[in-house]
Amino acid sequence: MTYQAPVADIAFALRHVADLDSLQQEGLYPEATPDVAAAVLEEAGRFASERIAPLNRDGDRVGARLEGHGVVTAPGWREAYRDWSAAGWNGLAAPASFGGQGLPLLLNAACLEMWNAASMAFGLGPLLTMGAVEALGSHGSPALRAAYLGKLVSGEWMGTMNLTEPQAGSDLGALRSRAERRDDGSYRIFGQKIFITYGDHDLTPNIVHLVLARLPNAPAGTRGISLFLVPKYLLDAEGRPDRRNDVLCAGLEHKLGIHGSPTCTMVFGDKEGAVGYLVGEEHRGLACMFTMMNNARLAVGLQGVAIAERAYQQALAYARERRQGRSAGWREGGMSPIIDHPDVRRMLMEMRAKTVAARGLCYQLAEALDRSRRSEDPARREDAQNLAALLTPVAKAFATDIGNEVASLGIQVHGGTGFIEETGAAQHFRDARIAAIYEGTNGIQAIDLVTRKVPLGDGRVMAGFIAGLRNSLEPMAGTPRFAGLAPLLLQPVDALERATAFVLAALRDRPADALAGAAPYLRLCAVAAGGVVLAREAMAAAAIDPHDPAHRRRIDTLHFHATQIAPPAAALATGIMRDHADAGLETVF
Amino acid sequence: MTYQAPVADIAFALRHVADLDSLQQEGLYPEATPDVAAAVLEEAGRFASERIAPLNRDGDRVGARLEGHGVVTAPGWREAYRDWSAAGWNGLAAPASFGGQGLPLLLNAACLEMWNAASMAFGLGPLLTMGAVEALGSHGSPALRAAYLGKLVSGEWMGTMNLTEPQAGSDLGALRSRAERRDDGSYRIFGQKIFITYGDHDLTPNIVHLVLARLPNAPAGTRGISLFLVPKYLLDAEGRPDRRNDVLCAGLEHKLGIHGSPTCTMVFGDKEGAVGYLVGEEHRGLACMFTMMNNARLAVGLQGVAIAERAYQQALAYARERRQGRSAGWREGGMSPIIDHPDVRRMLMEMRAKTVAARGLCYQLAEALDRSRRSEDPARREDAQNLAALLTPVAKAFATDIGNEVASLGIQVHGGTGFIEETGAAQHFRDARIAAIYEGTNGIQAIDLVTRKVPLGDGRVMAGFIAGLRNSLEPMAGTPRFAGLAPLLLQPVDALERATAFVLAALRDRPADALAGAAPYLRLCAVAAGGVVLAREAMAAAAIDPHDPAHRRRIDTLHFHATQIAPPAAALATGIMRDHADAGLETVF
Repeated sequence: MTYQAPVADIAFALRHVADLDSLQQEGLYPEATPDVAAAVLEEAGRFASERIAPLNRDGDRVGARLEGHGVVTAPGWREAYRDWSAAGWNGLAAPASFGGQGLPLLLNAACLEMWNAASMAFGLGPLLTMGAVEALGSHGSPALRAAYLGKLVSGEWMGTMNLTEPQAGSDLGALRSRAERRDDGSYRIFGQKIFITYGDHDLTPNIVHLVLARLPNAPAGTRGISLFLVPKYLLDAEGRPDRRNDVLCAGLEHKLGIHGSPTCTMVFGDKEGAVGYLVGEEHRGLACMFTMMNNARLAVGLQGVAIAERAYQQALAYARERRQGRSAGWREGGMSPIIDHPDVRRMLMEMRAKTVAARGLCYQLAEALDRSRRSEDPARREDAQNLAALLTPVAKAFATDIGNEVASLGIQVHGGTGFIEETGAAQHFRDARIAAIYEGTNGIQAIDLVTRKVPLGDGRVMAGFIAGLRNSLEPMAGTPRFAGLAPLLLQPVDALERATAFVLAALRDRPADALAGAAPYLRLCAVAAGGVVLAREAMAAAAIDPHDPAHRRRIDTLHFHATQIAPPAAALATGIMRDHADAGLETVF
Repeated sequence: MTYQAPVADIAFALRHVADLDSLQQEGLYPEATPDVAAAVLEEAGRFASERIAPLNRDGDRVGARLEGHGVVTAPGWREAYRDWSAAGWNGLAAPASFGGQGLPLLLNAACLEMWNAASMAFGLGPLLTMGAVEALGSHGSPALRAAYLGKLVSGEWMGTMNLTEPQAGSDLGALRSRAERRDDGSYRIFGQKIFITYGDHDLTPNIVHLVLARLPNAPAGTRGISLFLVPKYLLDAEGRPDRRNDVLCAGLEHKLGIHGSPTCTMVFGDKEGAVGYLVGEEHRGLACMFTMMNNARLAVGLQGVAIAERAYQQALAYARERRQGRSAGWREGGMSPIIDHPDVRRMLMEMRAKTVAARGLCYQLAEALDRSRRSEDPARREDAQNLAALLTPVAKAFATDIGNEVASLGIQVHGGTGFIEETGAAQHFRDARIAAIYEGTNGIQAIDLVTRKVPLGDGRVMAGFIAGLRNSLEPMAGTPRFAGLAPLLLQPVDALERATAFVLAALRDRPADALAGAAPYLRLCAVAAGGVVLAREAMAAAAIDPHDPAHRRRIDTLHFHATQIAPPAAALATGIMRDHADAGLETVF
């Protein structure tokens, strides 16, 4: 079972959940006309389905291999990447001034979903490059930008992010890699980094590493970290890759999933020191990293959506074809397709409802990021910034959590066949698992939401968000078709409001109580907002044609969410609004 | 990180959640004295931790391999199995008349948990043998029993269950393997079976296959299936393995997990037909299989508990050792162990609460099976049979679902390290995934609960079960320590009562509505009953010594379940008590 890019569903979400049209109409992205958007989605869908999806199995089976100190990617990956970057996909949302196409992040988000659904291990590489573009574009010196940015935007060279060290994962303040100043203004970098995604590979003739390290006089902790650009090959006078820099891949991890993506142990300065160039100011490296964090977290959230969509498509195809037993309504001879069994329909509907909700949240985040960059009115820009700040941890954690849940359901729909690797459902399950961990574990996301985002503007940002959810649901009460669902959808919104008051109060004098409920608080928030995503889709569908199958499916998906997913999520408030000792969390393990 | 059998926790559950002591005191299992039980647990724990646990990694990495038509198990497995069976573990709960030790299934359940926690792929083999003992002991002719039963009870030979065919998985009525009668009273079997666990291996000199097939005159569907015993080697006049039978392993599956357990495609009758012997009556094979179903489902449920316990131990050890960041209460220098972070504590507590609840439900099922076999009073025997019937799908599905959930949390606690295969957390996640599928998928379990178990005695069995849950919680209301938790624990019990009334009414004239909610109904039932399991542990712990760390942990685990797990589960009732169309399940996918 291969992947068919769900272009119609994606376009529907871009229009009715986010608002791509108004980004163009308001003049923020004048070039993102409906025609351009449609053409982009169509072409991206075709490339994803036809060129990338077929790579996914070999990426898993053969994987990336280390030969000597060079990583060789799986069969066909080089050619696919060459054609993908040649088609300009890498720079879709990069500013035109950097050589990009300057299209909205929102449109790029839809494309990222498709690349990653086709192959998460393949789609991951460009995410890192896009992050490097972001960091270098915002903080790099003119000389550095001139030398590297164009190549990164085009995708001719790829970028990496070198943060993690064995003792410094979630806590980057603990990192030990060091940098020494040289008289020529460059630096020499020494240290070992682990878990470096696409740290080495054969897709491009050069690789641009962004590396966090400490200068000798650096303050301790996170305020003493600087960011350096360390190319794999130093450039000659014409800016072409020339001499090998003192950086190498010393090993590849043997991972549960995304085998096609090389996860490298990188050694900097094994000999004379790796030549590096400062990005931004000394000791301000973490701030530079934070500028790209929102985008990267959105991108990883989209990986969750992507793998969920892929798993859903595969389970749906299997459920239509596989016959076992006779369902109650089966009138033909022989066995019914298992999609006729209510329990299988439930699993498929849960997969669909979670996938569509997560997609909508990610797209809303992308739109907020677009508006935070381009809105002319400072107040609207700030609102968009705040919304993006709030949605970032919610979208990242929820979408990657449901990526795991949906991929697991995908196996379950297949029964025993799902446990056999050749079926492919198991690969999605294995691949999905990392997205809840990297780019800030989902626990870190929940802590970010509770301790930094909920208190924004003394709680006014969150209060405004909740009011927005309520407003969006208001039209339902007056619509006979949806009036019965409105109270169910309001349950998590009301619960979120109560839980938010608890969290804000707890943060003042008993932060452990707020932290203890961070994970369910994030889930509650996502389900409340996800309900609004599905309500937008269903209301738009009903207004267009409630009898058309695709539109009916959107209405039915809302029914499923409202009756099956919203009430248990609302009940999470009980657990959030407890002190941590009462929740048993002070126990002696 | 290896496995330390949690003998004290297991013994506590055997005494305070189930009631092993009274099985002995009432004379049902007079030989199961406290001393014997303690010695059994101690020895089993030692064997599991010291001999089996070290096999688990190579079982995964090397796996079982097919060489020619013979399966070779991973290094060390032959020796470990030899010593395990020589120690008498295989026949622990088999009747003394068959050469077993005649100890309670309840005690064996504790041992099964330990074998499977040490290595699920290793522990799985004996489960099949125990099933074969069950089927043959109940339905085999005296001659068959004389020839095969003793060897199976001792574990000198292992057994298999050959049910599944490509077109016949959950729906066994569709199977096509055929049997022909021969004049000597034997049969010849022809057909292909897939997904046959331990279908071939080198652990024992003979393998006893139990095979479902159709006779030529058989009625269609499930009422035309017969059960045959087909040995790998036919026996000579002295009953020793002699000539190879016409059955072979044609291939091994490449699976997501349990690589150490060979999953075989078995070909019967490739040449002259595999010699088989009828077990039970012609066309009554499925009834024979059903006699062993409860035990097998319990055993698979115990695999869920086992893998959850294993994953919990590993995550706990990592969380104690790994240091990142500084928790709020951290007063020492450097970083705090991550177990000090509330979100990590939450994950560990969720792992623990789910594991202990699932263990308790499985043990209660085992006790019910013991009482259904040996209670002298027919009314009590029937009560026990009914309880076992009810608990079987609940324990199997819940324990294996939480096996997946806990193993996934186990990865999450490890962060990026959890995604690396060498860590071992990923293996538990992969291994766990099959238990929700085999021995009846968890969807099949939910359907069994709703359509066959809830209606038992016109709903009186379920009503009695719910009343029992209420009774068990009653002492809490009067205890200051627990009074606040009682209403939270009653939420799912009340919800279960309402949902049960809905299901019973729906079954009468709109079964699809009952089936649509089967999965959440099962979950609700398990969480309601699991709360009582944890309440029993906590009340016993408080009565003994609430300040002892192990006892305090039991009390805290109840707090976690009551505040965090019970309320969302109770809210599942909203979704169950909807017609399937209103839940969106009539959609056009």
